[in-house]
Amino acid sequence: MSKNRFLDDFLVGESFTTKGITITEGEIIHFAMQYDPQPFHLDVTAGLESPYKGLIASGFHTVAICFRMFIQTGVLLACSIGSPGVDELRWLAPVRPGDTLKTKAKVLEIRPSSSKPNRGILRMKYVGTNQNGTNVISFIVNHLLLRYKE
Amino acid sequence: MSKNRFLDDFLVGESFTTKGITITEGEIIHFAMQYDPQPFHLDVTAGLESPYKGLIASGFHTVAICFRMFIQTGVLLACSIGSPGVDELRWLAPVRPGDTLKTKAKVLEIRPSSSKPNRGILRMKYVGTNQNGTNVISFIVNHLLLRYKE
Repeated sequence: MSKNRFLDDFLVGESFTTKGITITEGEIIHFAMQYDPQPFHLDVTAGLESPYKGLIASGFHTVAICFRMFIQTGVLLACSIGSPGVDELRWLAPVRPGDTLKTKAKVLEIRPSSSKPNRGILRMKYVGTNQNGTNVISFIVNHLLLRYKE
Repeated sequence: MSKNRFLDDFLVGESFTTKGITITEGEIIHFAMQYDPQPFHLDVTAGLESPYKGLIASGFHTVAICFRMFIQTGVLLACSIGSPGVDELRWLAPVRPGDTLKTKAKVLEIRPSSSKPNRGILRMKYVGTNQNGTNVISFIVNHLLLRYKE
């Protein structure tokens, strides 16, 4: 992965696969206490009694972890100036304590702004996969990127 | 808001407005360190030099806070068994330290499952608003809810 990429340095179809992060019971409960206090994210016993038959991570936790894994690669460090939003966020399978997730981010579209010559949208599809090769999440981020160093 | 609601107790068009949460610089930086380590979420100086002219919250932080505010009402406590996903997540305006957000969640659609008689989808549009009445975020959650106590 080259350093200091800008919008026009990406190619449609190009993809990036991240290192992994192992999800612990402690992190699942800590996130849920702050952001998603539902019993099956907080309480091992309630998780066992739920349709998931065990504690599972909040989907908002999973999306944040998978996004972080890609940001952590540094690919967008020089060029990212935010995002207008995310499309088609899908939670495909439960994430459980002990799972190790990796993320693949693939370029779907590159769209220079028609009004602001210094920027544009990089549309990327993220897929998070666990240690068994099961896809647990997918989502599309519309990244707002600079086209050159300002 | 009545207690122990199930899917069929909701009405299309019905809405719920939450209490507020004030967003601090410390929480913005803490979340960004874990889940979105981009300079304009982590570093006050880098924020000032960014197009936002100051530190702003990660969009994944804002969505988690707004979701939490609605979960915290307890409306879904008896009936929520998860979610297959989110549509049309839009970050509409920056969230800055000191902002106080509230969330309005409105029922768009109620769709009993055709295959599993005990459950269905409640499609809800969330809108997060700051102390000035500016909408900062909107998103649609497809909530998977029980139709009755099991």
